Amino acid sequence: MSAPTAFLDFVDKNADKFIGRLADAVAIPSISGDASRRNDVYKMAAFLDEQLRSYGLETKLVELGDQEIEGQTLKLPPAILGSIGTDPKKKTVLIYGHYDVQPADISDGWDTDPFKLTIDDKGRLIGRGSSDDKGPVLGWVNILEAHKTLGLELPVNLRFCLEGMEESGSEGLDELIESETKKGKGSYFDGVDCVCISDNYWLNTRTPAVTYGLRGLTYFKINIHGPGRDLHSGVFGGTVHEPMTDLIKIMSRLVDPDGTILIPGVREMVGEPDEEEKLIYEGLDYNISDIEESAGSKTAISSDKATVLMGRMRFPSLSLHGIEGAFHGVGAKTVIPAKVAGKFSIRLVPPQTPENVNPLIISYIESEFAKLNSKNTLVLEDLHGGKPWVENTKHWNYEAAIKATKAVYKQAPDLTREGGSIPVTLTFAESLKVNVLLLPMGRGDDGAHSTNEKLDRSNFIEGTKLLGTYLYEVAAITSKA
Amino acid sequence: MSAPTAFLDFVDKNADKFIGRLADAVAIPSISGDASRRNDVYKMAAFLDEQLRSYGLETKLVELGDQEIEGQTLKLPPAILGSIGTDPKKKTVLIYGHYDVQPADISDGWDTDPFKLTIDDKGRLIGRGSSDDKGPVLGWVNILEAHKTLGLELPVNLRFCLEGMEESGSEGLDELIESETKKGKGSYFDGVDCVCISDNYWLNTRTPAVTYGLRGLTYFKINIHGPGRDLHSGVFGGTVHEPMTDLIKIMSRLVDPDGTILIPGVREMVGEPDEEEKLIYEGLDYNISDIEESAGSKTAISSDKATVLMGRMRFPSLSLHGIEGAFHGVGAKTVIPAKVAGKFSIRLVPPQTPENVNPLIISYIESEFAKLNSKNTLVLEDLHGGKPWVENTKHWNYEAAIKATKAVYKQAPDLTREGGSIPVTLTFAESLKVNVLLLPMGRGDDGAHSTNEKLDRSNFIEGTKLLGTYLYEVAAITSKA
Repeated sequence: MSAPTAFLDFVDKNADKFIGRLADAVAIPSISGDASRRNDVYKMAAFLDEQLRSYGLETKLVELGDQEIEGQTLKLPPAILGSIGTDPKKKTVLIYGHYDVQPADISDGWDTDPFKLTIDDKGRLIGRGSSDDKGPVLGWVNILEAHKTLGLELPVNLRFCLEGMEESGSEGLDELIESETKKGKGSYFDGVDCVCISDNYWLNTRTPAVTYGLRGLTYFKINIHGPGRDLHSGVFGGTVHEPMTDLIKIMSRLVDPDGTILIPGVREMVGEPDEEEKLIYEGLDYNISDIEESAGSKTAISSDKATVLMGRMRFPSLSLHGIEGAFHGVGAKTVIPAKVAGKFSIRLVPPQTPENVNPLIISYIESEFAKLNSKNTLVLEDLHGGKPWVENTKHWNYEAAIKATKAVYKQAPDLTREGGSIPVTLTFAESLKVNVLLLPMGRGDDGAHSTNEKLDRSNFIEGTKLLGTYLYEVAAITSKA
Repeated sequence: MSAPTAFLDFVDKNADKFIGRLADAVAIPSISGDASRRNDVYKMAAFLDEQLRSYGLETKLVELGDQEIEGQTLKLPPAILGSIGTDPKKKTVLIYGHYDVQPADISDGWDTDPFKLTIDDKGRLIGRGSSDDKGPVLGWVNILEAHKTLGLELPVNLRFCLEGMEESGSEGLDELIESETKKGKGSYFDGVDCVCISDNYWLNTRTPAVTYGLRGLTYFKINIHGPGRDLHSGVFGGTVHEPMTDLIKIMSRLVDPDGTILIPGVREMVGEPDEEEKLIYEGLDYNISDIEESAGSKTAISSDKATVLMGRMRFPSLSLHGIEGAFHGVGAKTVIPAKVAGKFSIRLVPPQTPENVNPLIISYIESEFAKLNSKNTLVLEDLHGGKPWVENTKHWNYEAAIKATKAVYKQAPDLTREGGSIPVTLTFAESLKVNVLLLPMGRGDDGAHSTNEKLDRSNFIEGTKLLGTYLYEVAAITSKA
């Protein structure tokens, strides 16, 4: 069952209106990781809730408790649970997305105000959250609006689970999903047949994708403190143990420039691919020039395509993100910082989990710090984490997504594993025990988490059609799990 | 010749007025290293010039040319040259100080607004620049005001050289001093018999000091860039060479946690002290608890007093100051920074100079970077530097400073070498070929370059008396160089 022409036409005709709504959403700086922006996260929840309700969704804003952040106790942003349709003859699809965003500031190097959606002459919709994840979430709002306005019946029952803490470890969400699942009859997740996650990207800029795997994550903060306050390097240089010296030493022992993770036992958990598995990566529509283009540099870790793709999808990777507390401004400040905190994370793949990897990390860093013979103090913090996930692609859920892609884009999607982490994916799979897929809207060069994040206009509009068509293809498949 | 009682009384009676003037000066955030504050540096120059002129100094604001900073071309802050007295029977003393300050922001961890002078219940005058170097410079203004108001003749001819770029490499000043010196007759420096530098601190919190040595400095920025923009560590981790990984590796190879400098040839330039030299350091009024108190932690590099003092005064030290371009905020941002710049400096001692040390640094870092086999790009920048300096303490200039200290503080000063760098000291010594000394106003725990910088009220007031008395003691000594 292909999507009705009326729906597809509506999307084309209302493109500018949809983009206007995305601009309104981008204008709310809903940065979950910054305590000072928490009110904007609440504001974004209210904005989204109002949109969903106006197009017929019944919603509930679920409080998720409190959070300690930057020494304050803050209320967590609510999860938005939503429901439309209860026809027992229809399949029920659960949609996941998030309405919070990564930090962004013009001083990070944005060409335009990150919280003012800017449309350039190539039709790119530029702004923080445009692609991650306000665009995709509003794609679903577009679909609801189209059906309500046209008086069209939705082909499936829809459930929504939208959160405001995805960029900060999805705090509180796992507990909600588990408790809501346990309610059984009458719960928002009762009767859900499959899950569609709207929060990732194509592998490249040409070929749509359906994603069946995600890396997990474990994120650490290495705190080292010594002096009671920052010191002048002329007056104190050579007289005290300097926290930066210790921290840099520890950070340098985590990863090598070729990407080798140096924490004993971590990389060793993951087996090597056989020749057959390597062929999967060889077959994807992707080449070294794609990564060079999206990274904006000729600095790929290898000239072998499969090696680079496996580096992203199949193997763990460790990134050093930065240091809190050291001098980070311009100029030449001669300071000995008193308290510094290095931040790094490891992307995990099966069978790695935060539970089996974190003890290796902690014991290694503690033992390396002890070797330094420093009088400074080490405190390790595990900031957040999530397990990796790999799904069965032979399921009708994937069949529907592949058919929808062919209908809208006239080409088969790449079946991909993604390098990023959406821990809730695994929670849905484990709690609901149904098939889960990721159906991305944006392209591989969208720059999520980066400066100048964008979503191509065509991806927003055709992506809205894709998500809608996917629902019709789900409905058309007679086998029900 | 001790200072007249009228002068000493005037200082006591006008203490609150003097502190008010210091508050006015601190309120001007004259941060020379921050392009956006350049107007405040000009404003501070105008404020100081107006004060000096109102008490009888003839001044000239000397333009020092342009500076490239943060991609802009800015006018350098002017040097203030000043002159009062031309009596050929009197000695002529040249005073040096600076009116710019280090960066400061409440978010760095200040307990109070750094640019609002706050007086606490211990009589501490807290604010950026209170001790480094607005307090000492205004000490001289206090002396001029006292003499003008009381109708007292100054015992010496005074010349001033005050700059606004000390915290940023004293750009333009060397050229000014050299060209002014070359003018000979009629120049501001004509006939100068000795130099008094007002820009350092006592070794401890009890004993005044006269300083005869300074470490030099060389400050480097290690730029490493790769991707065209910041990347998402989920999408790109494991696929590209990450600039942070390379930078941290390089920075970790500069210095060990015990302070050992790892750049071959740098430490080796400096000879070991013999037993007699060690005794000098054993004799200073200083102990491990002093450094622990001023650092606010029990993290001294050694439990041996002489080792710690030599670490500050007699040996080079390398400090890692921070990283520009990496994630430095709170929270857990999963970014791969595209362009990072690590900053470090080495404090130099004779016979080290930037000229003989920099080639060792550059060749070592380039060779270590080559070993990384990274496709990223390294660019090294030498931000600024200055030679170290050691002076002859048997000169009458030192005799006068020691006598003045005994008169005001009723105790002999520590004769110290200082760990910090005031490159212009050497320029004065080499250009004018006269004796130079440093006569500090503040204490060892003032926290210059740090948060909560302060100057004790007693140091500001007694320090003003000390500087004035020093002039009378210089005048009293009959031998003239």
